[in-house]
Amino acid sequence: MEFTTTQTIEILGTIAFAISGSFAAMQRRLDPFGVLIIAFVTSIGGGTVRDMLLGDTPVKWMRDVNYCLLILITSLLTIFFKTHIKKFKITLFLFDSLGLGLFTVLGIQKGIAFGLSPGICIALGTITGCFGGIIRDTLLNTIPLIFRKEIYATACISGGLLYFALLQFNLKADVTKILVIVFIFALRIFVVRYKLALPKFGY
Amino acid sequence: MEFTTTQTIEILGTIAFAISGSFAAMQRRLDPFGVLIIAFVTSIGGGTVRDMLLGDTPVKWMRDVNYCLLILITSLLTIFFKTHIKKFKITLFLFDSLGLGLFTVLGIQKGIAFGLSPGICIALGTITGCFGGIIRDTLLNTIPLIFRKEIYATACISGGLLYFALLQFNLKADVTKILVIVFIFALRIFVVRYKLALPKFGY
Amino acid sequence: MEFTTTQTIEILGTIAFAISGSFAAMQRRLDPFGVLIIAFVTSIGGGTVRDMLLGDTPVKWMRDVNYCLLILITSLLTIFFKTHIKKFKITLFLFDSLGLGLFTVLGIQKGIAFGLSPGICIALGTITGCFGGIIRDTLLNTIPLIFRKEIYATACISGGLLYFALLQFNLKADVTKILVIVFIFALRIFVVRYKLALPKFGY
Repeated sequence: MEFTTTQTIEILGTIAFAISGSFAAMQRRLDPFGVLIIAFVTSIGGGTVRDMLLGDTPVKWMRDVNYCLLILITSLLTIFFKTHIKKFKITLFLFDSLGLGLFTVLGIQKGIAFGLSPGICIALGTITGCFGGIIRDTLLNTIPLIFRKEIYATACISGGLLYFALLQFNLKADVTKILVIVFIFALRIFVVRYKLALPKFGY
Repeated sequence: MEFTTTQTIEILGTIAFAISGSFAAMQRRLDPFGVLIIAFVTSIGGGTVRDMLLGDTPVKWMRDVNYCLLILITSLLTIFFKTHIKKFKITLFLFDSLGLGLFTVLGIQKGIAFGLSPGICIALGTITGCFGGIIRDTLLNTIPLIFRKEIYATACISGGLLYFALLQFNLKADVTKILVIVFIFALRIFVVRYKLALPKFGY
Repeated sequence: MEFTTTQTIEILGTIAFAISGSFAAMQRRLDPFGVLIIAFVTSIGGGTVRDMLLGDTPVKWMRDVNYCLLILITSLLTIFFKTHIKKFKITLFLFDSLGLGLFTVLGIQKGIAFGLSPGICIALGTITGCFGGIIRDTLLNTIPLIFRKEIYATACISGGLLYFALLQFNLKADVTKILVIVFIFALRIFVVRYKLALPKFGY
């Protein structure tokens, strides 16, 4: 079985968000069943909203049961190994940021495949990247860290701009994708670190 | 006018959720107009999300105005007779559980009709059963009883598994449906009763 | 460049909701980036939900990048001129009510174009008018003014009834639209003023 780059990105993103969803749910002390549901919703949320907006239905995960199995196995492994993970919050944050980068690139690519203009593709990438986490936080009723959500979107949009900027250079498509994924991942981590030290500013 | 089993299930589910929505809204002291809207949203929420995910649009209630009339009449009657109902909370809970069973079976059937795999059909049934209640509670800003939501999903998924297990036996299709509806209804009531006595468990 | 009445209504509604979204976000002290996102979501929310329910996808704003540019410019101008606006709350309220009227009429027209029955068209108009504001308030985690939301829906539904009543008279189509827009705008302002003086009534 050979995977294309797009499939690899999709698989890795699905795993990353399934882990982040499982962690978030365990942090809120849901029962194992609840953890599975949150992992599932976090993992498929962004792509589902994207596909519904595009009218590309039945949405992806309904057509390919393998993604559901992947989420199930990832979530079960996360529950199983949770006692070995000490820095809960940081692990959650890292996988969430990784998923953000991966899914944003996926969304942009799908927009390009649908022939949409660059601005719309970036919006689509942002939606794909962010919505899983938004739904997860809404369902878990986490105190709404709008502040954090902003960073979410900012990282995605910046990554999207970088993507279309890189298209001007004759890089290999895969190199562009990987650069953007790393950029979004790094930007979010950098911004969160930086913001934490920054005083709240009114305006 | 003769109804098929599917139509009967759809009508009963619509009525059950319209009643549960009306009760929930009256409990929060909304004005009659607000009660109608919550009844409507609770009743069509699950099917609407299901149809949007499948791309079966315009969604059901837009194509058949009779469902809207049914909800309107049910909701008005509920408002009218509310003074005669003493055990508000229990009545709401019973109709909600009934609607859950009915709509889960409907969702599973629609998944089968679209040729989706069993796991996806169960997910679709769960979505159809749960989303009306989730939207209702979100709009009413009820303190999010994630605990209760979990039972929601657990009951739907268990019912879905039973549905596909029963398909192995050569039961009449209608018998299978009724058994699953009764199972989900009974399971939810049993679990809620049982859980109420159970100490909260961390893990 | 000449605009049809429908396009003019769409443009004005997009502007009105972009302003109302920007104000609401500034009131909650979001950073400029967050303000843009809330302006965007408020402006396209209603139409997006409408198009997804109808299956008219990819949704409108994805096919026409001009709406996104319009929202961007409106939002930037709002941020820029905010210091000159003293009555923040009232300005927000007025533009919100204006957008409500404009988008409700748009939704009704689209329902008619899809050959839906009058009741469904009114529901579609209500959804188009209300959803941008609902999503905005949910994202901003504003204390859920269900009370205010009810007025939202009441104004839209009343306007919708008026629309179909006016169709009985042989008015010019544009006159009907403008009358309904003004009616919804005026009704909401009137009702809010009136309700503010009204004692909370339980029932």
